[in-house]
Order: sequence, then C-alpha cells, then structure tokens
Amino acid sequence: MTPSADLVISGCTILEPGLTFRTDATVVVRDGRIESIGDDPPGEAAHRIDARGQIALPGLINCHTHAPMVALRGLAEDLPTEEWFNDVVWPVESNLTARDVELGARLACAEMIRAGVTCFADHYFAMDAVAAVVEETGMRAHLGQAYFSSQGPKGREESLEFALRHREGAGGRITTTLAPHAPYTVTEADLAATAALAREHGLPVHLHASENRDQAETSLARHGVTPIDVLERTGILDTDVLIAHGTGILDRDLPVLARARGRVSVATAPRGYLKFAWPTTTPVRALREIGVPVGLATDGAASNNSLDVWESMALTALVQKSTTGDPRWLTARQALDHAGPQSARALGLGDRIGTLAPGMRADLVLVDLTGPHTQPVHDLAATLVHSARASDVRTTIVDGRVLMHERRLLTVDVQSVVTELTARLPALTDRAHGRRVQDYDT
Amino acid sequence: MTPSADLVISGCTILEPGLTFRTDATVVVRDGRIESIGDDPPGEAAHRIDARGQIALPGLINCHTHAPMVALRGLAEDLPTEEWFNDVVWPVESNLTARDVELGARLACAEMIRAGVTCFADHYFAMDAVAAVVEETGMRAHLGQAYFSSQGPKGREESLEFALRHREGAGGRITTTLAPHAPYTVTEADLAATAALAREHGLPVHLHASENRDQAETSLARHGVTPIDVLERTGILDTDVLIAHGTGILDRDLPVLARARGRVSVATAPRGYLKFAWPTTTPVRALREIGVPVGLATDGAASNNSLDVWESMALTALVQKSTTGDPRWLTARQALDHAGPQSARALGLGDRIGTLAPGMRADLVLVDLTGPHTQPVHDLAATLVHSARASDVRTTIVDGRVLMHERRLLTVDVQSVVTELTARLPALTDRAHGRRVQDYDT
Repeated sequence: MTPSADLVISGCTILEPGLTFRTDATVVVRDGRIESIGDDPPGEAAHRIDARGQIALPGLINCHTHAPMVALRGLAEDLPTEEWFNDVVWPVESNLTARDVELGARLACAEMIRAGVTCFADHYFAMDAVAAVVEETGMRAHLGQAYFSSQGPKGREESLEFALRHREGAGGRITTTLAPHAPYTVTEADLAATAALAREHGLPVHLHASENRDQAETSLARHGVTPIDVLERTGILDTDVLIAHGTGILDRDLPVLARARGRVSVATAPRGYLKFAWPTTTPVRALREIGVPVGLATDGAASNNSLDVWESMALTALVQKSTTGDPRWLTARQALDHAGPQSARALGLGDRIGTLAPGMRADLVLVDLTGPHTQPVHDLAATLVHSARASDVRTTIVDGRVLMHERRLLTVDVQSVVTELTARLPALTDRAHGRRVQDYDT
Repeated sequence: MTPSADLVISGCTILEPGLTFRTDATVVVRDGRIESIGDDPPGEAAHRIDARGQIALPGLINCHTHAPMVALRGLAEDLPTEEWFNDVVWPVESNLTARDVELGARLACAEMIRAGVTCFADHYFAMDAVAAVVEETGMRAHLGQAYFSSQGPKGREESLEFALRHREGAGGRITTTLAPHAPYTVTEADLAATAALAREHGLPVHLHASENRDQAETSLARHGVTPIDVLERTGILDTDVLIAHGTGILDRDLPVLARARGRVSVATAPRGYLKFAWPTTTPVRALREIGVPVGLATDGAASNNSLDVWESMALTALVQKSTTGDPRWLTARQALDHAGPQSARALGLGDRIGTLAPGMRADLVLVDLTGPHTQPVHDLAATLVHSARASDVRTTIVDGRVLMHERRLLTVDVQSVVTELTARLPALTDRAHGRRVQDYDT
C-alpha cells in the first residue's frame, strides 16, 4: 500500500515544461517535491486542495531585490538616480539596524507570498536577519550580504562568512552568493579577490553592473572599459554571476558576455528604469540570442514601489515590444518562459524550481481566472500575462508547504509588523546627521 | 429636524480638490450628490459605511474604451496594428450582434466596477445595448455610436439619433456624443457634416485621431495635412471634441489645438501603445502646456487586455517620465490630477464628477491600503499611484448608489454573463466568411 502523500492538488490546469497547458491535472506532493502530475483520481493525502477552475504555475521568482527596503517605499519619489541615492537612500541606510532589516524582510515576504512569489534573490545588509525571516516564513531565497570597498576588507569577509554560514540553510531553501555592490563602488582589486573567493568556495556572485547607460559611458570615459569589461578582467565572469539590471550593456559587451567561462545571467526590473527615466532597458533580445538567461525582478520597493513580479512580467513584455519596435517579440508565452525557467536558471536553481515536473521542488501558485477582468479566455498565456494580476493568486506553496491559502497568509502577521515598523520610521528616515553609507559617483 | 441622509461614509481619508488629503472625514450623500464633507460625527442615514483606514478617491474615469470588446480579450495578440485590425478585429466585428454587445458591456461594467471605475466613454456599435447595460448596472457613461463613411449616410444619422435618444438618460448618468471613427475612415465631407450636427444639437464629438505616428505621416504624405489639420478644417475643432490616443500629434499640431474654438481634450491609453510597439506615446506634457486636458483610458480589452484604469494611471506616470527623460515630471500627484479632474474635464463633466466636494455627484471609491504591498506609507499619493492596485478598491459608488461593497458586485452576475458569452464565441470569432467591417489603410 502506497503511503499517503503530503499534499494533493486536483482539478487544475497546469503549465508544464515546454510552456504547454494540461487541463484537469492532479499534482501529488511528497517531501517537498512534486512526485507526479497526472490525471488519475487522487489517492490518500494528508492535505488536499480542490483547484478546479484554477491555473497552477511555477511560483514567481524575484531575481533581484533588496527586500527590507519596503520600509522606504514611497520615501524617495520622482528623483534622478544620483539624488535618489545620495540625498535619500544612502543617508537613510546609515541608520539601518538589524531589527529594521528583520521587520522589512518580514513585510516583504508577506507582500511577495501574496503576489505569488516563492523565491527571491536578495542583496542587502544585515542579511542574517533576512535569513532568519526566510526560515520563519517558509520562503525560498538566494541571499548575499552586500558590501562596498569603502567598508575595507571587512565587508568582503563578512559577505563570505554569511554565504558559508547560510549555504543550503532552512532545509535547503536558502542558497547564498557573494555580493559586491557594483563596479562603481567596489574596486577592481576587491572584485578580483571576490572572484577568487567564489572559485575557492564554489559560490556564485550577485552584483549590480552597467545598471544604466550613464554608468557604462562614464566607465568608458574614465577607464576606457565598460563595467562588463571590468567583470571580465577581474575574473568575475569566470564565476556564476547574476548581473542586476544591465540596461547599460552595450553591443561591444555582448561578445564578452558570450565568451564568459562562468554561468552569466541578468535580472531585469523594468518598472524602475521607466521611473528613473533611464534611456534604455535591459537588452533582453540580444541577451537571449547569446544564451544568457534573463530573470524577472522588482529591485527594492524604494525605487519600484512594490515587489510585484507579476507586474514585472507584463512590463517586460510591453517594454521589450516598445524598445525593439517589434510587436511580435516577447510574446506572452516568452514572458512565462522568463518568469519560470529563465528566472530559475538566472539563480542557478533551474534543476530545482521554475518548472512544474516530477522531481522538482513543489514551489507553485494557484491562480483564479474567474474574475470579470480575466474572462473570456481566448489565449491562456495572454490572459495570465496581460489580464491577470498578482491579486489573482489564491494559493502560494513553497517546498510543498502552503504559505497562503485563499489569500490568507499563514506564516506572517502583517499588522504586528506594520505597527512596529511604523514606530521605527522616524529614527530610520532621519537624515539630519548628514552621513551616508556610500557616495553615488559612477 | 434634518431628514436623514441616503448614505454616510465615516472615518476615511479623502482626496479633496487641490489634491490635498483630509483625514478622518465624514462624507454625507443625499439625492446622488455629496452634500457635505466634514469631521462632524455622522447624523441619521439610511445607509452607513465605516471607512476607517480607507482612502476615498473620485471614481476612476475611463476616457476612451470600447467596452464590449472584452469579448475579444486575448484574441489578437502580438500583432502589428494593421494585422490586428484587418486580420482579426474587423473581420470578427462583422459578426457582432446586439446580444454580443450587451453581454460584453455587462462583463466590462463588472470589470470596471471592481477596478474602481465609475464612468466610461464608450465608442462602439449597437450602443442602445450598452445604454441599457449602463442603466441596469448603475454605471455612469459617455456614449457614442461609432460610424465609418463606408456605411454611407446611415452611419452618421444613426450616431445622431443615438445621441439624441439617450442624452441625459439613466437619470442623468448617460451623456452622449457623436462618434465618427477617425479621419482615416471618415471622409472630410462626413467630418464637416458631423461638426455641423454637433453645433446644431449642442453635442460633443468623440473620435480617434493621430492615433500613431504612422497615421500622421501617411496623412502628411498623401494629403499634405496632419489628421489634426483635418479636424480643424472640417470644423471638428470648433466643437467639444475628445481625441483618442493622439500619439501621432506633432509639434506643428500644437498651435492648431491651442487655437481650437471648441473644448479639445485627449484620452491616453499607454498600455496599448507599448504593446503595438508604437514609436511614441501621447505628448501629455506638451498638451498640458497648451491647456488641453488629458484623461486616462484603457482603449478596448482586445488591445489593452484589461479595462484597468488604475494601471493606466501608473503607466502614464512611468511612460511620461521615460519618454521625456525627466524623472521629476508626471509625479504621483499629477497622475491623480489626470485620473480625477482632468479626466472629468476631458469628458465635459468637470462640473459633476472627478473631484470630491459638496454639490458634486457622489461617484467615489474606497481604497484599502492595509495590505503588505501598500505599507508603510511615506507619501500617500505615491502609495496610491505606484503601490496600490485596482484590486485594493473595496467599495465603488456611483450617484450615491453602492455598486460594489467589500469587493462584492451588487448589480452584475458575472457567472451568467460569462456562461452565455462563452457559448457565443465560436460564432462571434468565425472569420471564414472573409468579410470585415472596414479596411485599415491610413
């Protein structure tokens, strides 16, 4: 007799590998994995979800964020990049405490679980607090402790210690990275040292690079090389590296990325590029042509105003059509490819998450398309990408555990987080001291 | 003794004229109007809403849509404009019946009420069916029966008859327009005849013009004038005219619009411009500088995939920043100005709706910002525009009548509409006949 499954989800339409939809599917989950996807009547199960009329998708993956920055949501509006950093964000971050980070991360996890995000790549400070929140809330995360060269060797050392301490933490839900901030805030010597540590310890690297065209052009003018060239000559491109944004990646950078010996990927967070009025977006089509996976992201809520990866999915499709001048490019189906498999590969987790198939971790969401804004359905991919919203996610599951059911969060008490965080905001946002954690000068 | 009010909403934060927020406000509604906004404890009322913790905003206004086209949502994806019209939409529309229009309009009203939209400007066929749905669902609408010159004089005559028959219908909730399709589908003689009818009957005009740059350039090449020049020389700019899209408005058109004798306004629906990969968007800043109100819109769901005006509000801010290269322009507060007062003025309804003040019609929505994605709040305008979503609208009120309460629709049965509409889709979407209602040839 077969022992009972942990969870059986029945009656859903499921997005399978190859981006095809299978109707009336039964998903059996055991030990945090998808055991089977079939059309058999479900057997014994400890927990069951009747998902008739719902769509099962891989959980969304936020490939680049600073989760605790939800605490600054709406604090630095309508500013150019340099003022945003120098006048607001970096002064405020000089006040950050581990408790602020913990509360911010907890609120961010609540927001992401409600938006159908099951995994996030976080790049911030006081990351032990974030790791603890990931453990507690049941999320999956890819975590790195950020550092600037202005911190001295300590920053890099702490980033390594964090990565080693938490690697495969939270029952395997936490993976870790080294996290230098960016080529304009970390010296070439420190980047080279980081690349050596990455190789020595088998760790990936997550950093900002060529965030915008101005950074690329300033780097060329000052140093005769692009930020991508810097990544190559410091050995960062020999590691498994996740590059945030890359809207300043130039045509001359493409062969450099194509010949990288490591696994290079890029995270795109298009909302912020529009909001900062950057002149370009991530060159998704060119990256796709050289085989670089592009994952979806939101960046932090201090620039993006939300951690809504569903919106990033739709905006990526829209902005790519607009910037390439080609309405046939980045179809809804391709957007689902970026949201699932490509985002998982961007984090080096393509063998665990991002597709729904037997053997994969059971990270999935159930989406309700019965609302008037998602009817009728002529093209399920188009309905999901262009008509549905994050709020249509009814159920969020990570490693087989239900974190939200029928829009009720099961692992975070939002009200208590908001109450404590709000009380701390005057101290957090005080800028009278005139300090900042770093200067923005590309 | 004061007779009891019809509705009292207490404890909300309200957006007042001048774009300021007043906390702990009590809104008293009587006979469909806002009687008072104060901080007094509420008196007698037939109906009460405790709105503590919620934000009262003017109901959103969809300044240009084709509501019944929700039936085609997702049917014509990833296509250039010409193929979208000629290969899918106009062949399908040759199958349209009044029943299809009625069901589509009912579904669209359900979608809009749930998204906090209280008024829509509709430009479509079989509009008697739409007027009946507006009456039944409690929405406010600005309706015009569309026509092409290819229909002969009958099209224009029916547009006039519709406008006269339904003017100030549904207890004043319906206002009407003449609705020629566009300068590329309606001859100059017919536009001139329309302008004369508008003046004779005191009716406004709603049409597409300079939808995209290609249309403007083709018009210049073929006729030596822009579509805006055509509107001037046919007398359309002497009427009160609502121009849909205008992404092809050129610098040379601005003085023409500025000297128009009628009230000229423009509706912007930025999602579709991205999706069609049009090279420009509505020149909102230039139009603002010459005093032309720009209202928010979604266009039909066959191109926009939703009737989500909240998304149009956020995208207008983002796309204007991006296209002007100025992150300081089109702030969240300005976006709220376009959503409320400017959209109302665009429809000629600025004296009735679009701001919340005593004497205005009671068209408003209550928005819940307690979700994790809208906390904490540093800047209420930014939270509303960039973090909140249509799904955060809890209650929608038109003319003092509650059409949705706590997200429950009170005047539409979505399931029955979807069931009947879905059964009709094979006949509606059949293109084997090879007919189309019109050719797209700008």
